This record gives sequence, C-alpha cells and structure tokens, in this order.
Amino acid sequence: MMFNGYNEELVQSIKGWLQEDVGSGDVTTQTTIVAGHESKGIIHAKEAGVICGLPVAELVFEVVDPTLTFTAMVQEGQMVAKGTVLAEVEGSTHAILTGERLALNLMQRLSGVATRTSSFVQALDGLPTRLVDTRKTTPGHRRLEKYAVRVGGGANHRFGLYDAVMIKDNHIKGAGGIRQAVGRARANIPHTMTIEVETESLEQVEEAIAAGADIIMLDNMSPDMMREAVKRIKAKAPHVKTEASGNVTLETVRDMAESGVDVISVGRLTYSFSSLDISLDLNEKKEGPLS
Amino acid sequence: MMFNGYNEELVQSIKGWLQEDVGSGDVTTQTTIVAGHESKGIIHAKEAGVICGLPVAELVFEVVDPTLTFTAMVQEGQMVAKGTVLAEVEGSTHAILTGERLALNLMQRLSGVATRTSSFVQALDGLPTRLVDTRKTTPGHRRLEKYAVRVGGGANHRFGLYDAVMIKDNHIKGAGGIRQAVGRARANIPHTMTIEVETESLEQVEEAIAAGADIIMLDNMSPDMMREAVKRIKAKAPHVKTEASGNVTLETVRDMAESGVDVISVGRLTYSFSSLDISLDLNEKKEGPLS
Amino acid sequence: MMFNGYNEELVQSIKGWLQEDVGSGDVTTQTTIVAGHESKGIIHAKEAGVICGLPVAELVFEVVDPTLTFTAMVQEGQMVAKGTVLAEVEGSTHAILTGERLALNLMQRLSGVATRTSSFVQALDGLPTRLVDTRKTTPGHRRLEKYAVRVGGGANHRFGLYDAVMIKDNHIKGAGGIRQAVGRARANIPHTMTIEVETESLEQVEEAIAAGADIIMLDNMSPDMMREAVKRIKAKAPHVKTEASGNVTLETVRDMAESGVDVISVGRLTYSFSSLDISLDLNEKKEGPLS
Amino acid sequence: MMFNGYNEELVQSIKGWLQEDVGSGDVTTQTTIVAGHESKGIIHAKEAGVICGLPVAELVFEVVDPTLTFTAMVQEGQMVAKGTVLAEVEGSTHAILTGERLALNLMQRLSGVATRTSSFVQALDGLPTRLVDTRKTTPGHRRLEKYAVRVGGGANHRFGLYDAVMIKDNHIKGAGGIRQAVGRARANIPHTMTIEVETESLEQVEEAIAAGADIIMLDNMSPDMMREAVKRIKAKAPHVKTEASGNVTLETVRDMAESGVDVISVGRLTYSFSSLDISLDLNEKKEGPLS
Amino acid sequence: MMFNGYNEELVQSIKGWLQEDVGSGDVTTQTTIVAGHESKGIIHAKEAGVICGLPVAELVFEVVDPTLTFTAMVQEGQMVAKGTVLAEVEGSTHAILTGERLALNLMQRLSGVATRTSSFVQALDGLPTRLVDTRKTTPGHRRLEKYAVRVGGGANHRFGLYDAVMIKDNHIKGAGGIRQAVGRARANIPHTMTIEVETESLEQVEEAIAAGADIIMLDNMSPDMMREAVKRIKAKAPHVKTEASGNVTLETVRDMAESGVDVISVGRLTYSFSSLDISLDLNEKKEGPLS
Amino acid sequence: MMFNGYNEELVQSIKGWLQEDVGSGDVTTQTTIVAGHESKGIIHAKEAGVICGLPVAELVFEVVDPTLTFTAMVQEGQMVAKGTVLAEVEGSTHAILTGERLALNLMQRLSGVATRTSSFVQALDGLPTRLVDTRKTTPGHRRLEKYAVRVGGGANHRFGLYDAVMIKDNHIKGAGGIRQAVGRARANIPHTMTIEVETESLEQVEEAIAAGADIIMLDNMSPDMMREAVKRIKAKAPHVKTEASGNVTLETVRDMAESGVDVISVGRLTYSFSSLDISLDLNEKKEGPLS
Repeated sequence: MMFNGYNEELVQSIKGWLQEDVGSGDVTTQTTIVAGHESKGIIHAKEAGVICGLPVAELVFEVVDPTLTFTAMVQEGQMVAKGTVLAEVEGSTHAILTGERLALNLMQRLSGVATRTSSFVQALDGLPTRLVDTRKTTPGHRRLEKYAVRVGGGANHRFGLYDAVMIKDNHIKGAGGIRQAVGRARANIPHTMTIEVETESLEQVEEAIAAGADIIMLDNMSPDMMREAVKRIKAKAPHVKTEASGNVTLETVRDMAESGVDVISVGRLTYSFSSLDISLDLNEKKEGPLS
Repeated sequence: MMFNGYNEELVQSIKGWLQEDVGSGDVTTQTTIVAGHESKGIIHAKEAGVICGLPVAELVFEVVDPTLTFTAMVQEGQMVAKGTVLAEVEGSTHAILTGERLALNLMQRLSGVATRTSSFVQALDGLPTRLVDTRKTTPGHRRLEKYAVRVGGGANHRFGLYDAVMIKDNHIKGAGGIRQAVGRARANIPHTMTIEVETESLEQVEEAIAAGADIIMLDNMSPDMMREAVKRIKAKAPHVKTEASGNVTLETVRDMAESGVDVISVGRLTYSFSSLDISLDLNEKKEGPLS
Repeated sequence: MMFNGYNEELVQSIKGWLQEDVGSGDVTTQTTIVAGHESKGIIHAKEAGVICGLPVAELVFEVVDPTLTFTAMVQEGQMVAKGTVLAEVEGSTHAILTGERLALNLMQRLSGVATRTSSFVQALDGLPTRLVDTRKTTPGHRRLEKYAVRVGGGANHRFGLYDAVMIKDNHIKGAGGIRQAVGRARANIPHTMTIEVETESLEQVEEAIAAGADIIMLDNMSPDMMREAVKRIKAKAPHVKTEASGNVTLETVRDMAESGVDVISVGRLTYSFSSLDISLDLNEKKEGPLS
Repeated sequence: MMFNGYNEELVQSIKGWLQEDVGSGDVTTQTTIVAGHESKGIIHAKEAGVICGLPVAELVFEVVDPTLTFTAMVQEGQMVAKGTVLAEVEGSTHAILTGERLALNLMQRLSGVATRTSSFVQALDGLPTRLVDTRKTTPGHRRLEKYAVRVGGGANHRFGLYDAVMIKDNHIKGAGGIRQAVGRARANIPHTMTIEVETESLEQVEEAIAAGADIIMLDNMSPDMMREAVKRIKAKAPHVKTEASGNVTLETVRDMAESGVDVISVGRLTYSFSSLDISLDLNEKKEGPLS
Repeated sequence: MMFNGYNEELVQSIKGWLQEDVGSGDVTTQTTIVAGHESKGIIHAKEAGVICGLPVAELVFEVVDPTLTFTAMVQEGQMVAKGTVLAEVEGSTHAILTGERLALNLMQRLSGVATRTSSFVQALDGLPTRLVDTRKTTPGHRRLEKYAVRVGGGANHRFGLYDAVMIKDNHIKGAGGIRQAVGRARANIPHTMTIEVETESLEQVEEAIAAGADIIMLDNMSPDMMREAVKRIKAKAPHVKTEASGNVTLETVRDMAESGVDVISVGRLTYSFSSLDISLDLNEKKEGPLS
Repeated sequence: MMFNGYNEELVQSIKGWLQEDVGSGDVTTQTTIVAGHESKGIIHAKEAGVICGLPVAELVFEVVDPTLTFTAMVQEGQMVAKGTVLAEVEGSTHAILTGERLALNLMQRLSGVATRTSSFVQALDGLPTRLVDTRKTTPGHRRLEKYAVRVGGGANHRFGLYDAVMIKDNHIKGAGGIRQAVGRARANIPHTMTIEVETESLEQVEEAIAAGADIIMLDNMSPDMMREAVKRIKAKAPHVKTEASGNVTLETVRDMAESGVDVISVGRLTYSFSSLDISLDLNEKKEGPLS
C-alpha cells in the first residue's frame, strides 16, 4: 500500500537518516576499500520472525546509489526461520557499506513491529475483532510503523490528529460534557469525518450514544463492564462501532475481544519492541580497477 | 551536553515530527475546545525508571507555543518511583494538546533507553569498565538516544561513519588484510582520528597490534579467549584500548568486564527497548474568553 | 480554527512567498528610503465584500519584522462597505513595504473566496443544507482557501486524498464495480474513516446503498432524479449522508438543496474567483535617524 | 522560455503541492485499485480557450512517476474548441490518479490566465502597445502566471522587487520628492538597472523627466491627461518609455493605448480569473497482476 | 543596504554554515567548559584594512544564541589600524565559541574584499568612473560579497543571470549576430530590463550601437581602441553607457578609466583575495554555576 | 575520496548555488539562443597550476541537465601548463551556459587551493612532515576545500568541532588548567576520539604531556623552542604526535619541519588564495530545430 508510485516523503526521510550516519563521509570505507570494488551483500535473519521492510531497504540502497541491484528472496510479511536469506544487494562495495546500517536499522525495527503484531493477531484467531495500532509511534516513523502493523496482519487507527475526531477526557472537560463536545465537533468538521468518544463508565457510554458518536472507545474497563457496554451500544445504536483500549497484552487480548468489541487498539505494537536481529555479510567480491 | 546553546538541528526535527502528527490540523481540539482556554498539564510516571528527555519535552512545547511555561519537577537522569510528577506545562490548552503526544513519545523512549542503560551500568558497579552504545540507533534519533545513554550513566561510541575509523571483517577482506587496511587508513585520515579494528581470533588480535591499531575490538569471543586477548594487548601495546562486543546481556556483562577490557559496547541499549510509561493529565483549567 | 497555536507550515509558506517577491532585495525601498524611517500603513477595502485573511496578513508582517505592530480594525468574516479601514500596520517603512504586496495578494484572494462563499450560503438561507468546497483549490493554498470558505459561512469537504475515501467512476471501473470497490476499501482503511461513492444513476445509487457506503454523491443529476435518489437513500439507509455536485451556480443552488440533499459541493468557490480590491496607503510617517 | 533546461525550483514546488494533496497517502486509490493496474488518461477541454500549462502537467506526472508517458495533442498557447483532447498520459493508474488533481488545477488556472490575456491582446490588435502583467500574482505561482501571460500573447513587467526600481507614491514621500528618490536610487543601483517613476499628474511627469527616470508610469490618468503626458515625454525625453496603469478593462484598454503609451499594465490578468474547465478521463485500461 | 528588515535567506545560510562546522556537537567546549560559564569575546584586527561584516558577525551570534550581546566598536567600512578592537560579544562561553569560527571566517573574507575594492577605488580618485564587481563570486556568498564591494566604495554589476541581459560572444554566435541577438532579447524581456553587449572590436561596437544596446562593454581592448570606442559611442548614442573589462589591475585601472568609460568591472575583487587577519580573544570571564 | 557513491549533500549545495545565479531565469540565453541549439564547450586553463574540481564541474552540469556529456581531458590533481584543455561538455547550449559560471567559479577556487597546497608540499620534499589544513575554510565549502588540499598533496586536520577535541587557550582558562581540561574531556568523549592541546610555552608542553594529551600543538613557537618541545615530547611520551602552527609561509615551512614535528597546519591554504584562471569557450555548434 505504501510503495506504489509516489514516495517522495520517504525518500526525503532516508536522505536525512543517511546524513545522520554518514555526515562528512565514511572514513573507513573510503580509506580502506579501493574505489571500483564490487561485492554482493547477503541480508539474512539471525532469528525467526515476520519480515517487514524489504522495499524500504531497497529504497535506501537506491537512494545511496541507483546502480545497485537489490533482490528480495522472501515475501514481505513472510514468517521466516533463523538463518533465512532475506535479500541480496549487489554492486559498489562503497555504496553497500554506506547504506548497510540504515537499511538494517529500518528492517530490524519494522520486522520487530510486524512480528509483535502478528502474535497479537494470532491470539485473536477465528474472532472477527480487528487489531489496530495507536499514535504511540516513533517520531518520524509513523507511516512506516503503521505499514509494519498492516504487514503483520493488523489494521490502522487514525494516522494523526488531522484525519478523525477522538474526544478524550481532556476534551470532554474542556467542552463541558460529551454532548457539547460531540455537538461542537459535528458542526465544524467535514461531513466525511467521524467522531470517536473515549468512555470510562457506562454513564459515559450512554452519553456518547445520545450525543451521536460514530465510534465509542471503552477505555480500561473490566471485562464485565465492557460486555455490558457493547450490549447497550449494539441495542441502541447498531451503526456505532466499539473499540477497546488500555493495557492490552497477549494474555488479555482474547478475553477482551470476546466481549464483542469491533476493534482493539494496542499501544505496545509500536512503543516498545524487540528489533528482529538481521545482518548483512559481504560474501562475494570482485576487484575493480584500482583508483 | 546537548541543550546548551545551539539546538537548531533538534528544533528542525521537532518541527518535522509535529507535522507528522498534526498535519492539516488537530480537528478534535480545534472544534471542541474554545480558543482562549488555558490549562495546566501534569506529566507523571506510570512506572518506575530513570527519567530522560525533560529538556526535549520542554523544547517541544516551546516550538509549539513559546508562551507555554514548562517546569521540570525532577532532575534529568533521576530514578523515580511510579506516580512521580515529572513536570508541569501551563498555558493554552490547544498548544498543550498539540504537543502532548510528541513530548510523551520522546520522553517515553528516552527514559526507556536511560533506564536500560542504568541497569547495565549498575551491573558493572565497582569495575573500571566503560559501557557504551553502538550505531544501532533509531534513524533520525541518534543524537537523542546517545544523549539518553549518557543520562543513564553510559558513554558513547563514535557518532557515525565520519568521526572514527572502524575496520570490520568486510573492510579487512576488501583491503586484503588487517595490515593493509590499517596502513591505508592511517595514510589518509586526519592525524586527529583513531583506528579501531574488529577481531574474532587471537591471530587477528596479533595482526591488529602489529598493524598499529589504536583500539582493538574483541568480537563474540569466549571469556577465556577474551582474557587472553586483553593480556597480550596490555603486554605488547599498553596504549591500545580494548573493547568487547557481541550479544552482551545483563547476565553476561559483568563476566565480560572482568576480562579486563576497557570498554563494552551494547547494541540493545537502543535497538530494542521498553518505553517507560509516562502520561499527561490536564487537571486544572480556567475558562478563557470564548472565541 | 487555523490561527490558534501552531502555524509552522504557514510560516514556511510565507517565507517562500516573500522570497519569490523580494529575491535578492527590494532595490527601490533600499535605495530611496533611509534605514530608520517609520510609517503607519492603512489597509482599506476599495470595494464591498466579506473580509478574510486579517490574521494571515498579520503573520506576513510578523515574519518580515517582529517589531511591526498590526491592528485589525474589523472582524474576520465581517461584511464591509467600500472604503472601510481594515487594519493598520506600524513601524519600519522598509518592512511594511517589503510585506505589503504579499499581505495584500493574500487578503484579496481570501476575501474573494469568502465573499463568493457567502453569496452561496445566503442563497440557501433557511434550508438545512450544508455548502462545502472541493479539492479544486490553488496549489499551495488549500488550507488557506478552505479556511476562507469557513469564514464565508461554508463548510469543508475532505482536506485531501488522505483523510477520506471518495470512490469515483475511475475507481469503480478499476475495481470492477461499486460493491467490490467499497468492500476492498472497507477492509483496508482505518475504522475511523468514511467511504463516499460518486453515482450518476439510480442504479448506481442502489448499488452504493447495498455496498454500505457512508456517503453517496449524486453527480450531475437532474432535479427529479436527485429527489428520487434522496428519497430512496433516506428510506433504505437513513444513516447515509447525501451530497449533490456538478455545475452548481448561484441560480441553481437553492433548487438543488430543495431536493433534500444534506450537502452541496461547489468547485467554483475556489477555482475561479474575483479578488476583492484592497490596498495599503502610508499616510503617517516620522523621519528616523539617517543611515 | 521556462521549460528549457533547469527547472529545479518548479520541481520543488510541485513536490510541495503534491504533498498538500496526497499527505499520508491516497487511501481511495491504494485500497480500490490493484497495484499493477495501468490506464490511459485523456485530458480534454470542457470549454473553449487558450491552452497553457501542458509542459507543467507533463512535469507533474514525471515527478509522480518517471515511467508515465505524457503526449501533448495540441500546441501550448493554442486556442481550442470545447471538447478538444489536449493530452494523453499513460501508465500506472495509481500514479495517474495521484497526479491528476494537481495537473488539472495548474492547467485550469494557467489556461484561464492565458485566455484572459489573449482577450486583452486582441483588443489592442494593430496597435504597437505592449500589454504586461503586474506583481498581483498568486503567491508561489508568479513565474508560472507570468509564463501564462506570455503564452497568451502578453509581455512581462518586472519579476519582483529585485530586478528593477519602481518609485511609487510612498517612496516619493519617504525620499522627499521625485528628484531625491531618483537621484538616490541612481547612485546606488547597478548601472544595468532601470528606474520607473509612478506619476499621477502632469507636474509629477515633468519632475520625473527632469529627474532622469527611464520609464514613467501614468497612473489612473484621464485619457486627455494621458495623451498630454505622452506628448510631453516624447518631446523632452524621447528615450523614456511610457506605461499606463489603473483599472484597465477590456472596454477601456484600446482607448488607453491610443494615447500613445508604450506599455499598459493590467493587474486583473492574474489577480482575478476564471479557470478554464479541463478534465481527465481514464478511458482505456489493462489489468495488471494482482498485488 | 542589506541588514534592514528581512534577512531570512542569510539566516538560513548561517544555519547551514554552522551545521557544517558544529555537526554533531562542539565536543571540546561541551566537555571542558561548564554549562553556565560566561565570557566577553574581543574581536580585533591583526592587520590594517577596511572592516566589513560586523552586522553579519552580529547575526551569526544572534542565530547561535539570541541572549548574546554584540557591540560593534568601529563603523562598517572603516579603515582601521592593526590591533584595533572591532567588536565585543558577551554572554555564554559555549555560544561564543560555537559561533566564533564562522563569524571570523566571514568577517575575514568580507574585509578582504572591501579592502581590495577600496584600493581600486582610491586608484580612481577624482575620476567619475564607477568601479563594479562581476559574477565571479564565491558560490553561496554572492550577496555578501557584493555587499562588501559596496562597503569598500565600489558599486555592483547585475546580481545574476536574471536581472539584466548581457550578450556575450557565445550568444552572438548562437543568435547569428549582434543585431539578431539584441532584437530577439528586446522583444522578449520586460520593458524594465536593459541589454548590455560585449564587444571586442570597433566593428562590433558599431553593430551594438546600431542594434540599440543600452550598455556596451569594451572587452580586453587596447587603451587606444577603448578611447576610440568611447568617442564613437558618445557621439552616436549619448544615452548608451560604456563599460571596460578584462585583466584590470591596480596598475592599469586608472589608465583605463581615463579612456572615458563610465564603468570598469573587475573580477578579482571577489575571485582572488587575501582575507584580513581578524581574531577573537576571551579576556574576561565570570564563573557561572557549575552544571 | 569524495565522489564515490553518495553525494547528496554536494548536490543540494549545487542546487542552492545555481539558484543564486540563475534566480528567476537566464534572460539572456532564453531570449537570444533558440531552444534546441547544441554546442560543445571547451574548458581550458588560462594559467599554469594544479587542476582540481573536474568531478565537481561534472556534477554541476549533471544537475543542470543530465543529458549533457562531460569529458575530462586531464587527471584530477595534474599540474598543467597555460592553455591546456581540461574538459569538454557537450549538449544543450542553454544548459551549458546556465552551468558555466558556477562550474568555473568552483574549479577556479579549488584549483587555486590545490596549487597553493602543492607549493607547500614541494617545499617539504624529502621530509616526513605532513602538511594539513585548518577550519579557516570558506563557509559552505569546507568539504570541497579539504578535498582540494588532498588533491594538492596535503592532508586534512579535523573536519569540524565534532570529530576531535582541540583544547585552546580559551578552554584552558575556562577549565582552570590543562590538566583539568584534558581530564574532563577524556571522561566525557567517546573512547574513539583524541585530544589535542594547544601550547605556547615549554611549561604548557610539560603540562600537556602530564595530562595525557594525544596530540600537542606548538603554537607560534621560535624554532629553538619548537625543537626543544619536540625533543621532550618524544622522550617522555613517544606515542604523542606533535603539530606546529602559526604564520607558516612558503619561506618558513621547511625550517619548521626540520624541528621534527609530525604535522604542520597552514590556515592560508584556504583562507586567502588566488583562483586559477579557467574559462569556457563554445567552439562548435549545430543548429537544433527552432522553437
């Protein structure tokens, strides 16, 4: 969904990230490897997981040097075993080594996110509940991390503050109540936009229904309260979607889903994670002309 | 070390990160909260840890709106208990809510890095060994994450490919040997720059000593081999520094240090981490003039 | 809604627009007016209309020179008579003349958009129909022009390709039908996002209802067909919103609204317009120290 | 004149304008059209007018996706009838739909400017008078709009504050008189630069002649006064060019030109306009591989 | 002429130049000087010359830290003796040392340009000839270097390829002759713009007169030929300005001027120069609070 | 060393420098030369020197128009005689003339730096002393000028404030002594970074040795003092490198080297220089199709 067509924003990010690492120049490669030297770099997984970021790594190497050739050896989103070769990149050794660290740093993180998401999705196996992310993403990496959630089998919540209304406790206090907050929002937003209201009690759920919310979030509720909330919403406002949130873990997610909520949002998909261990080895090389 | 004087680069990053979240506008706050509304936001820790990022959060709020006042309630680097109030930010409710997510996303990650670093440093208590980070940092966040490592009691390795020579296996192969690689590098780098050589065997250690390396990295060696390597280096080249690397965990780090190495570098300080749970509550507010 | 808090994006646009006009320097002012010279500039309307852009003009002058003082003399969105003084700007003559053209160019265009919008809104007086804009805005000016539509009494459609799904004829053809297009979209978009389907016949309206569209656009339909379409939608899917579009003029808009549609979208609010004639006179000045 | 060689500035503008529309992604196309789908888009005029912006549209599509092929079917500057096919663009459906709106928004506006300019130029048919634009252009679009004026048969006034001296009423007051203003400017500007003085009376015309102006603008003068001014200038300073300005309409422009002025400048060429109605239809398509 | 009002472009250049020097941080100052330390830096001339760049240095320090105070002790453009104190800057020692090198690098170069220009201007003492620069300026420094030429008593030629027509040998060949080149240019440039023609023989001078050039450059002519050329131009086209160019040195410039040319352009004002030796000493300091 | 692989930073600089010269367009070329015209430009040296900047000039022309072909006719770093053809560039005349001035301005300056460096290096012929540059480079040109120093046979000092510690007089005063300054720095910098201390007396040299400096700079010392300093350093701390600095001229550099210092740093390699005179002639051309 991301790498069809126009990726200017990502290309600019990659240029900035390369600048961070390369700065005034890769002194090691420039001084130890002759200019025309060519290699093939083999990227492989040092542990098992769901692979994400192959087209990102390809783009990194393309930005560094458009003459490099990158060949993915597995599918994006594939679960792989330890030791699997993920991709090969061939061409100028200088270029491969300049892009290596950034390409790996990105693949490791994105595969980490996809792998964790995949575990949550498997925990919901057979249930209709949709698993989604939050805005607790790494600054500068939101689109990539939300892409990794999709690759891992999850879905996305809103992309930012701009594409949906989410009325939280602070907005309710500031507006003087759920009714007032929803009313003001509805009057001022485009007719294409939806309103979600965060609730912490059955009273708030009732208020949100009455106010005409499109989506009602059930935040940190007990399983019983959540079940009751879903029941009331389905009865009184069948078009309204329900979302559960708050300290969702692999242990609790299935119980939560069985309350009948449509969506469960999980902050820890992106805000804590284990990078998947991935590395690059140069294992073939041909001497180019000395420079 | 970072927030004295000139922070233009960080300010530009913050502007980009705000753009990512705010985009064409925070539709919720703009439509539900009246324009002149003012609040005090209380930032507090929802779990125990080493706090890092207070001046970063302050800068985020200053970029959003220079009239906000930010007051840190704990010291940067302080170990705090769950529930501790970390800072207060006061002023326009619109501005506080626009900056909230970015400020928290940054503090959570940086405190996660500082907390993990602190655990490693404590494991070395009483030993002279220096604990350092690597280049496995989040793209776009290297200076902040290296700052968090220092706040957590660690030290930094090189900042990028530009400020020190690090000759790894691939460079050795490309150059035709350790001697050739070090020789070429020495001839071409500034006299102010050092050369580190990565070794995986005692033979390579001997070659690195002979080649005149300034720092010798002992990569993935067994405790015995590492002890022997350190002994030989101290005997033959007492000015040369030693660095241990490779799968360092909280369980193994002290043993590794007792081999006598000067420095231990740990990738997982920054490439996998648990964010520290931190949140912001608006708990006081005064109605401003309706707009 | 736009000028509370964080306006970095607009500030950057203003800097680019100033660069376009000022380039390597305002040679006239720099060579004919002494450096310390101060003036008061009076901005007034040379024809009647709805004023929009006062805070934009203020921001232009602030970017040029933060020591200028800008005082609005009418309300944003106020209908004014020819000759009305709209604002005063006081301080460095050099700064006032550097910012003048850009401030006026923006106010003239935005007031033109607001004035035209206001005419359409008045034509709907007493009806519940909402008048909205389209994506036919001036490149680089979308947020400002959509703001002017709101100031003129209208509302906004989606902001861009990113914040709502709008399935047009081309997408229907590409997907193989309305049902397929809506189905694929629903499966892949965030649960916070809505789907609008553009229809040109009653058959397509029925398909869109069956497919579960959230909004149905009635494009270029005759009054009778439009009335029939609205009737069917309200009967079968009361939650679905209706939007009319296509060659809407001041003469036809009220008839169209009386078909019962919820929303009418009008491209010509922004893609053709008459700028409102506004000018700036320097009518007081004090000699500063010669430079 | 614009699209020979180096267009970096325009490419950057196009990237910014695409970002404005596409933002975090075209959710409709990405979710409803499969990745490899290809089409041919036909751009045609929905009303008669002078076409301008074909190479701009081509550049838009090239920025979005360099593999698209764009074929212009009419000449830039050609007067076309309603329904004429203007261009075809062929390739990835995703890319065509991502660039469509921006390409059309630009062509519509530029053709509107060219068409209006052409009407003014025709009104001067047979006269030697040159019709030129002003600085009342859309912020961020000056070079494009001045290009459209040339395409429509007009000529350009100065490009900005930097490439010629234009002494207006405010400068005359600030400098203490026309003589002082011209004198100071002449002493300080490059010898390659010219000085134009704006006059509103015959006395000012005489002063401007005496001061050595290169060009004298006759602002808002009656036909008689304008004729007299031109006569005096031609008599006393035959090298000096004359320019008429102020509320020039299609009805008045020919009378004004017959006063003998060399140049007439018309703000409304660019500051109010009707976009020419142009649209894009996808009328051929081939299924690509499913993604 | 440069530092009144709007300097955004220069501020952006300064930020880029600081980034070049400071990069990931001034490790020396950050580690050896405590955070709150304050100093006064004294900037003085280590050799005699014409001082230029005081407001540039002030802007550098303001960009680094707006709380620094900068006090110029001499006038911009003043001829000073060796040892003269030029300015003082007071405040954070960290900030002073971060900006020091850039401020000095700029002042040294600009004073070098002003000093050399001043020598040429003095060589023309008593003559009406104007001494001007060329486009042979340091990339990225054109406006500053042209400013230094003015500070040194010279004047400017055109600023770039955009603000005047200069027809050189290559254009004459490309157009098929001087008459064709001037004719085509006149028809297509704004009426506010002038045309200069470069000539190398009396025949070309005659052609340029006949073609209607506004300025005729006499390139690399012998003193006799130059005198004859000036005579003919003054006789036949008294409004045309004359410019001499080509290997102008301090030894030859006065002879050249006595040919009667209006302007002499000198490339070596900016393309080779001796920086004026200027340094900064911290000679007062107060301990701030330890950090 | 610079032009292998990733040059994004330089490409961005070139785009900015072209913008400075070309601005709103090359009015001369655009109006006098027809659009399809093609030429071959011959770049030749108008005086003898060491050529530097051929790949930079190539990159300039590539940025302007990727269809131009650039062929270097001499080696980078070659000493050439007056009149030597250095390179040819062939293709669109518009593109060649747009890039000409920037390409020449860069080659002239870089060849000037390389030529001067080469003279200093020759003066050290047969001695082991390394000649290096300083941070007194032209703002925005540091990497290029340091590259020119290498091309001229010299070596580089640190690249900026970020890649090595250099403790000068001001830091010593701020820290309270050499011992304190070195100690604080050592504790806080990466173990990969070195510390240089600037000394002006034998006492300071002794302190620097005792403090554990890695490099000791001997600043402005007499030949005798320098010899004595070197002797003591080699005796007490054989691993420490020595660097001489201060008013190094072609006359004094060999004497200075004979004191036995390892490195001599020379500010005037980059902060004053004579550009090498290089020009471009269009000497072949073919008419393209008229536009």
